[in-house]
Amino acid sequence: MDRRSFLKNSALAGGTAAATTLAAPAYAQGNRTLTLVTTWGRGLAGVHDAAQRTADKITAMSDGALTIDLKAAGELVGAFEVFDAVTSGQADMYHGADYYFGGQHPGFNFFTAVPFGMTTQELANWYYHGDGRGFHDELGEIFGLKSFLAGSTGAQAGGWFAKEINGPEDFQGLKFRMPGLGGEALGKLGASVQNLPGSEVYQALASGAIDGTEWIGPWADEKAGFQEITKFYYTAGMHEPGSGLSLATNLDVWESLSTAHQSIIESAAGETMYWNLSQFMSENGAALQRLQAGGVKVLEFPDSVWDALGVAATDTMNQYAGDDLYDRIRASYNASMAASSGWITQSEGAYRAQRDRVMG
Amino acid sequence: MDRRSFLKNSALAGGTAAATTLAAPAYAQGNRTLTLVTTWGRGLAGVHDAAQRTADKITAMSDGALTIDLKAAGELVGAFEVFDAVTSGQADMYHGADYYFGGQHPGFNFFTAVPFGMTTQELANWYYHGDGRGFHDELGEIFGLKSFLAGSTGAQAGGWFAKEINGPEDFQGLKFRMPGLGGEALGKLGASVQNLPGSEVYQALASGAIDGTEWIGPWADEKAGFQEITKFYYTAGMHEPGSGLSLATNLDVWESLSTAHQSIIESAAGETMYWNLSQFMSENGAALQRLQAGGVKVLEFPDSVWDALGVAATDTMNQYAGDDLYDRIRASYNASMAASSGWITQSEGAYRAQRDRVMG
Repeated sequence: MDRRSFLKNSALAGGTAAATTLAAPAYAQGNRTLTLVTTWGRGLAGVHDAAQRTADKITAMSDGALTIDLKAAGELVGAFEVFDAVTSGQADMYHGADYYFGGQHPGFNFFTAVPFGMTTQELANWYYHGDGRGFHDELGEIFGLKSFLAGSTGAQAGGWFAKEINGPEDFQGLKFRMPGLGGEALGKLGASVQNLPGSEVYQALASGAIDGTEWIGPWADEKAGFQEITKFYYTAGMHEPGSGLSLATNLDVWESLSTAHQSIIESAAGETMYWNLSQFMSENGAALQRLQAGGVKVLEFPDSVWDALGVAATDTMNQYAGDDLYDRIRASYNASMAASSGWITQSEGAYRAQRDRVMG
Repeated sequence: MDRRSFLKNSALAGGTAAATTLAAPAYAQGNRTLTLVTTWGRGLAGVHDAAQRTADKITAMSDGALTIDLKAAGELVGAFEVFDAVTSGQADMYHGADYYFGGQHPGFNFFTAVPFGMTTQELANWYYHGDGRGFHDELGEIFGLKSFLAGSTGAQAGGWFAKEINGPEDFQGLKFRMPGLGGEALGKLGASVQNLPGSEVYQALASGAIDGTEWIGPWADEKAGFQEITKFYYTAGMHEPGSGLSLATNLDVWESLSTAHQSIIESAAGETMYWNLSQFMSENGAALQRLQAGGVKVLEFPDSVWDALGVAATDTMNQYAGDDLYDRIRASYNASMAASSGWITQSEGAYRAQRDRVMG
């Protein structure tokens, strides 16, 4: 679906739930198996874990009354086909990164990450205590989904390069894997940006189909093996400062569930959010040390790159302006980010600086 | 219980579960009401909310099979009596800050906060992906409790003072409310440190029983009304850099529950962890602006205060050394903090600095 068709779809749905006008199918009252498809290859570090943990928690808390059958990318449908599989009813739920579905509606990007956007803490503030979750619902109703955040990678690394990046001109002509609006921003610097599911990145890098890639961060990247091919690793990046992962349930299926089972799905997703973020945060430090010990050169982008990406990111965000829902989500997101980021610097930021200074 | 008696208690228990040697009482298989006592006055911003949300989630997910009856501080027992109430079986669960029970065992402090210790993210890393939760279990088994983290305030503010603090000598003779090992460290600077439950702090400050207090942060402090009495507010502090709140269940009660209901309690607690942290993080910024607009002077401690508190904190942590469990928890906690703090600075910290620089 291209941008014009999502606008048409939004207009047809009139901002309300097209899917809910269909009668919900009747289900037997006994135990029930729900099929969960994911955008992750089986075993991909951290992201598959988030999907599996959410599934296992639902099964455990419901005492098997809702048994979740996880089908990783390629086992039932391809990584990028999960959205259509769930909205069509072929599968019951997906776990994935919603920015993969930015072509359905650009508003989905905010629930993973946007360039120069929120950290995970800021995303959680907006989602759980601002308008974030309400917008996730509003987007979901257009397509027939009920979604919850269900994992986070934290701030993602800038990625893997075959050579050092000394200025924005070094992105010219670079074949680079980066999804979402961050990828679109990178394209404005002249990169040839490609979107590939995680399970296909290693092969693309090894074959030379791409020159470089970002994936997640040191731990997940090391597991994926990119250090076997490229040696220049940039840590902080602008493209995914705190990526959320989503669990989305077909809205008809959702509405057929008891309120207790709905509550179980919501809590399993919510609990996995911080569990998963902490998993990445606890693994990344040691992984980065191993990568360095193995000969990877760890670097930071120069300010000139950040500056050029800042302009490109703003241009990218602006190009979707004019769609009412996108504009409302963006305004709410930016206001929440501005309101909550200051205290984090003032309290935890100041504390960490003093702890480093005093305790070494 | 003083330090000698906790050591005696630990020795008697032999490091294993004394409580589990008692036969678990038989319970009917139908719906069941569990009494949850808390260390929070009813309605105390954020902390009571965490207790209530955890309770409501357990009731909702179990479809009422486990109905949680919340009794706030003073409704069944006093704030600091919840530990004895649950270990004795008078109540089934408590929600509170475990450092209130540091007199039972100093290891409990690590599950709320210790001076110059972990931020909430670092605590979650250790708890969910390191040895933290296992140590919480080991402590709980000594006393007959099964505990989970179930909320966090984030980094707490340094607190409220009647005058500016220009150096460590200004703490001499100051009557100040601060619980936990942070309070003990402050005492080494000559302060007369008092531990009071949250619901009693305002009256103590208003009556002059104390000269100053810390509580949580701008939002909760504003709700408590301290700005009506004192006007000097210090933001970052060393005493509670990322306080965890705990949900503890009587171990006999816990073991009488089905695995599905145990899983529901664990997830309700886990989900509330990040929901509650985000609540504080989303409210504090605006609250601080209101406090400033109302005439509160917002300040940071000078380096000389941080330096003196660093020495005092290390002395405080050292004075409990020699207890095997405390030593093992402390070593694990410090190793985890060192391993995970670097990446947070390198990724999210570097990103936030660039975002501020580029986007303003």
